[in-house]
Amino acid sequence: MRLVRYGEAGAEKPGMLDDAGQLRDLSYVIADITPDQLDPIALDILRSIEPKTLPLVAGNPRLGAPVRGIGKMICIGLNYKDHAEEVGKAPPPEPQIFNKAINSLCGPFDPIIRPKNSKKLDHEIELAVIFGSTCRYVSEADALKHVAGYATFNDISEREFQMEHGGGSVKGKSADNFGPLGPWLVTADAVPNPDNLKIWCEVNGVRYQDGTTANLVFSVARCIADLSRFMTFLPGDVLATGTPAGVGHGAKPTPRYMQPGDIMRCGIEGLGDQEHTVVDYSGS
Amino acid sequence: MRLVRYGEAGAEKPGMLDDAGQLRDLSYVIADITPDQLDPIALDILRSIEPKTLPLVAGNPRLGAPVRGIGKMICIGLNYKDHAEEVGKAPPPEPQIFNKAINSLCGPFDPIIRPKNSKKLDHEIELAVIFGSTCRYVSEADALKHVAGYATFNDISEREFQMEHGGGSVKGKSADNFGPLGPWLVTADAVPNPDNLKIWCEVNGVRYQDGTTANLVFSVARCIADLSRFMTFLPGDVLATGTPAGVGHGAKPTPRYMQPGDIMRCGIEGLGDQEHTVVDYSGS
Repeated sequence: MRLVRYGEAGAEKPGMLDDAGQLRDLSYVIADITPDQLDPIALDILRSIEPKTLPLVAGNPRLGAPVRGIGKMICIGLNYKDHAEEVGKAPPPEPQIFNKAINSLCGPFDPIIRPKNSKKLDHEIELAVIFGSTCRYVSEADALKHVAGYATFNDISEREFQMEHGGGSVKGKSADNFGPLGPWLVTADAVPNPDNLKIWCEVNGVRYQDGTTANLVFSVARCIADLSRFMTFLPGDVLATGTPAGVGHGAKPTPRYMQPGDIMRCGIEGLGDQEHTVVDYSGS
Repeated sequence: MRLVRYGEAGAEKPGMLDDAGQLRDLSYVIADITPDQLDPIALDILRSIEPKTLPLVAGNPRLGAPVRGIGKMICIGLNYKDHAEEVGKAPPPEPQIFNKAINSLCGPFDPIIRPKNSKKLDHEIELAVIFGSTCRYVSEADALKHVAGYATFNDISEREFQMEHGGGSVKGKSADNFGPLGPWLVTADAVPNPDNLKIWCEVNGVRYQDGTTANLVFSVARCIADLSRFMTFLPGDVLATGTPAGVGHGAKPTPRYMQPGDIMRCGIEGLGDQEHTVVDYSGS
């Protein structure tokens, strides 16, 4: 099942794709796609609905992030061996994490906004896990039972903010629109093996990241199990599982950063594609 | 004005203290103390209410964190020179931050839960800033205009999780009940100078942290201005401004960690005190 949220930012309505990929209006059934709609019972009810009974949505509305009310966003660093190599680091002995500000989340076709004073804007395509049930002290064997679904995610990063202002990564990861999520939440039953999905990102038609989640240093289940020792994951929380090689910051011989006017496209096998135009921040 | 939330966890009601410090029921006026209630207009309306018209709350109910729906929690590290010294680091050239999981927040008298496999549980009394309006690219001169109020906060930390598992601090900062906030949100008009408040923490009656926010490396306004270049703060967001010397991890000659049964008390001048019993995690 593919769940979406469509409409203007802040006023999205819930929707579902039918088998033909047409957008259907779910607002007759639920008010929005919120954490409480992600537990196994709630998803089973949605799955039982015959999509053809839901009205078709006219036109081609904007899509938002496919969940409203995400409580926290944890990201794994250096979780692909080839990406660790390109940035000159060894793969870590256990999952390394940082936290991204929730209000950096945006829709899968929204502009990527280059902040004031930014010169090192970069992309990081990542597989995002969206939790459906409360998860703490879970074993690797049971970890995926807590996953409501998966989504395409791009952990947009500003490398100077991230690396030249001290402390952790959060400064370079948290600006507005630095977290495009979607287009869909694909429920876990439709993703039999999250550890074997093609994953890619291109800028202006050049494919810079072209990997597979089969190359994750720590599997999705391992990441969840490991991190559930340190914090409790709640329904609607998001875990981004790291990015494969090919980020601009690791380009040889010269790093490459995204510029206003660039078109960035990215996607994950079965989870849908994103497309973004890079723009400069235009406010005061 | 001192705002509180009282009642069982997850079912708190809004309240206000009157001049005599008695708890008054605000639920006739607002449903809860949420981010939209923190903007200057909403706070002015609440301030205009004559507290005596609100019913007294009977008994001595539990208090929760004084805001529901906090979106993000940013914490400053090494922001007191004496604390930087005790952990063997130089004060940083600009504010250093990490992000704490929102679901670690709890009430000002709730138990501090020592996680499974934790041996290095520690306290960090901190002044918390609670935002009332959207804040990005703000100057130091204008920064405090975005503050709805202040609260006592303890950035409970697990030093092994924080320092011996790689990556940033978030692993050691995010367990359940690692973020007691309150007892009150004291509105900014009642805190003329947040950079000159006594701040203290004791365990089993011994005062280990005994400082003043006058010793902040970076003032509250400077922290807000600096960080607003990297991310947007929204109403209800919390910024914890660092802890003074005296944490257990910095004790000489031997670090000291909190144990089950310990009583931890802490407070900030004008913002109220917290008291917590340390307990072991008792779930499965």
